[in-house]
Amino acid sequence: MSVNYVLINDDFVLKEDAKILISDLSVQRGYGVFDFFKTIHGEPVFLDDHLDRLYASAAEMYLTVPFNRDGLKEIIRQLMNKNDLPDSGIRITLTGGYSEDGYTLGKPNLVITQSAFTFDKTGFDKGTRLVTFVHQRQLPHVKTIDYLQAIRLQHFIKQNNADDVLYHSASGIGECPRSNFFIVTNNDEIITPDKNILHGITRKKILQLTGLNTASAAIYPEQIAAIKEAFITSTTKIVLPVLNINGNTIGDGKPGTLTKTIFKRLLGLQGIE
Amino acid sequence: MSVNYVLINDDFVLKEDAKILISDLSVQRGYGVFDFFKTIHGEPVFLDDHLDRLYASAAEMYLTVPFNRDGLKEIIRQLMNKNDLPDSGIRITLTGGYSEDGYTLGKPNLVITQSAFTFDKTGFDKGTRLVTFVHQRQLPHVKTIDYLQAIRLQHFIKQNNADDVLYHSASGIGECPRSNFFIVTNNDEIITPDKNILHGITRKKILQLTGLNTASAAIYPEQIAAIKEAFITSTTKIVLPVLNINGNTIGDGKPGTLTKTIFKRLLGLQGIE
Repeated sequence: MSVNYVLINDDFVLKEDAKILISDLSVQRGYGVFDFFKTIHGEPVFLDDHLDRLYASAAEMYLTVPFNRDGLKEIIRQLMNKNDLPDSGIRITLTGGYSEDGYTLGKPNLVITQSAFTFDKTGFDKGTRLVTFVHQRQLPHVKTIDYLQAIRLQHFIKQNNADDVLYHSASGIGECPRSNFFIVTNNDEIITPDKNILHGITRKKILQLTGLNTASAAIYPEQIAAIKEAFITSTTKIVLPVLNINGNTIGDGKPGTLTKTIFKRLLGLQGIE
Repeated sequence: MSVNYVLINDDFVLKEDAKILISDLSVQRGYGVFDFFKTIHGEPVFLDDHLDRLYASAAEMYLTVPFNRDGLKEIIRQLMNKNDLPDSGIRITLTGGYSEDGYTLGKPNLVITQSAFTFDKTGFDKGTRLVTFVHQRQLPHVKTIDYLQAIRLQHFIKQNNADDVLYHSASGIGECPRSNFFIVTNNDEIITPDKNILHGITRKKILQLTGLNTASAAIYPEQIAAIKEAFITSTTKIVLPVLNINGNTIGDGKPGTLTKTIFKRLLGLQGIE
């Protein structure tokens, strides 16, 4: 295995030495934000969108990113040069920092990791199966490190022969823990929930596609039985057809026409052949 | 400053060297549980109650405590012997462990810290001021490390000239981030919320006191205007009178009679003179 570096504040350290003190508020109080983007052929994908969200998340949580945007881009480029992983996922985490009393915010710790990642198109045809669960994430518009429910629900997901969980609440269907949810109605409307969700970058790119009847609006669980297609979106999945929800087949159980169209257009946007 | 040791899994390390890899799921996903108890004159207070809750929290989150109860008590005793802090707070944290993919649970990391702590009775007369906020903690009966809202709300608390926040939701008043809430009605009933809260050890001890009219039942914000006394309870605060909520004085703005009675009885239970 090749050498892998992690940035911790100002230092590049080997992955196996990448440690922080246990007084950090992520360990003590689960307090931190992050963002995650891909690189393809050595180029970050939608980097400014991800940095926009990172700075917004940090501000919402009273955390100061220790670099301005140009400085952050420069340090990311340095990490990329050291690791030489042209196709990768890069995660930028900002924690609550070292806290003497284990409660008061400290100076945030910045951690940037890079891992090999190549998008695998063959996952598209296999699609994915979801199981619904009543849950509303706290601070949904902020990309915090809080995945307590998501990780705890791994057993529930397996027990229900699903691949992931779809949260819903009184305000309707929300999102999966790491992806946004879309449906295609019988009128070929492409709808994604609008409220109480994390605004994904892939979701945003889809809503900006021209020539399609996309909308951001509430979706209720009762609507699911009548939908034609469904898919989830994320940086790593891009577009993944949802073929089953709660044991019920969606459409004819195969990736739908509009789902395929959107997938192709997203691949095009990202320069994936 | 004297030397302070921290236990990380099987190793006693100096506090300034107490580090974990950033691949730990506490850092990556805010995933972990903990408990916290006091020692007075070198003796743990209500240790079995705290360990009961720790093992229950761990089980709810699919985390295995790497010691059985006797083993855990033994290792705590060893830490106490090394640190020689007769009056202290001891925190036992169990994280989601090192995760290769940053999402799947690993082997939990156990971290035990000890800090000097002596209960200061003079805080009682000063009391505390609360400000209410609509929030329901996820997995409320589990003592997870999730304090995202609590720490984020420090600014809100200051802006409202309060010392702490009191969560409430559709199911009524809940709790403060690190303490349980009690009211005393005009009929001298001592009531604490029963649902969607963390079951504090001090709260439990109060509900077990004889000769008092205590009850665990729903409390709604509208009731606050008419209450005679209010107080919060925790391991570090024991019993702390609430003298103001949302800018409104409670009772005559001084610690109430029943609050004082309960405080004295709790001090007695813990051998504090």
